[in-house]
Amino acid sequence: MSVSHGIVEKRGDTPIYNSTILDSVDFNRHRASFNPPITPDNLGEEFVMRPLCLEDFERGYMELLDEHVPNGLINKEEFTERFNKMKKAGDIHLITVIEDVTTNKTIASATLVNELKFLMKATSRGRIEDVVVSKPYRGKQFGKILLETLTLLAEKLGCYESSLECEQKNITYYSKFGYQVEPNDQYMTLRFK
Amino acid sequence: MSVSHGIVEKRGDTPIYNSTILDSVDFNRHRASFNPPITPDNLGEEFVMRPLCLEDFERGYMELLDEHVPNGLINKEEFTERFNKMKKAGDIHLITVIEDVTTNKTIASATLVNELKFLMKATSRGRIEDVVVSKPYRGKQFGKILLETLTLLAEKLGCYESSLECEQKNITYYSKFGYQVEPNDQYMTLRFK
Repeated sequence: MSVSHGIVEKRGDTPIYNSTILDSVDFNRHRASFNPPITPDNLGEEFVMRPLCLEDFERGYMELLDEHVPNGLINKEEFTERFNKMKKAGDIHLITVIEDVTTNKTIASATLVNELKFLMKATSRGRIEDVVVSKPYRGKQFGKILLETLTLLAEKLGCYESSLECEQKNITYYSKFGYQVEPNDQYMTLRFK
Repeated sequence: MSVSHGIVEKRGDTPIYNSTILDSVDFNRHRASFNPPITPDNLGEEFVMRPLCLEDFERGYMELLDEHVPNGLINKEEFTERFNKMKKAGDIHLITVIEDVTTNKTIASATLVNELKFLMKATSRGRIEDVVVSKPYRGKQFGKILLETLTLLAEKLGCYESSLECEQKNITYYSKFGYQVEPNDQYMTLRFK
């Protein structure tokens, strides 16, 4: 049993997606290099990668996201409602976290959105969203390993592509994972809030 | 009762999202201009805008998508399975079509993906995907009105932003709907297939 699945099972937590999906990822196929070498199943003794769980509200999950985009806290009831809506949607919002098991805090998070389509023989498309690592835990390759793992997961789930948005200055960084800017593609946004 | 809701109800079709959601859009707030003026509820006598329905497999829906990305046809069983998976996910893949009611064919389609998030007080983000109009029906502003309607729908659903990808040459076109290129944002893709 993987570390990820083990901790979810042992606690009887409610994961947002089945933690065995994470085990299906063949990390040997990773594209970026890790120095020192770490894997999703071996992040160091204090750390575990696993799906977001309902119980992570008590483990500082919203405070973690607040480091990424401030002033967005919600209460437990609101968290539970949103969690249940995502879980019910069925393996579309694959939110994956890293926990520091010595403090029981979620300290990193990233999301793979598995967007379903009818075209291309009912394929899907992956999107990497909201990669966040808590400040005291930066420099441990946690953002990198979450990104790599979710990219491999997108491929495993049968996505025809994975995409992400980044700042101009980070293009070189993301290209190490195999992501490319396609010169003719343009990305446009309309902000409502 | 709106035209959209009326036709779905009358036939007893199974819509991928509740057709009354479309009625909630206040089209008076549109940003682009339409000449001649058309609205989602008044596209001309032969045309109706409504959610994709399970029954659209028989109304040429896959052939319509095949004009956008070829060689992607699936059979009825595969269509039904994918449709049910999306419907069960609950108002995430808001696929909206235009039907020519004189031929009973779906002749245009666009998707609003309503991606759920925890951050920003459990907000969501809209994405416009796969806008396609069948060749004989181009020049009737159908792509335009689908895009405008789904953009207003994203706003109505509480998305903090809506985004889309387009070719470089179409930036001016999409800017009429309020979409903008944000100079520092970069979009990167990793293709698996």
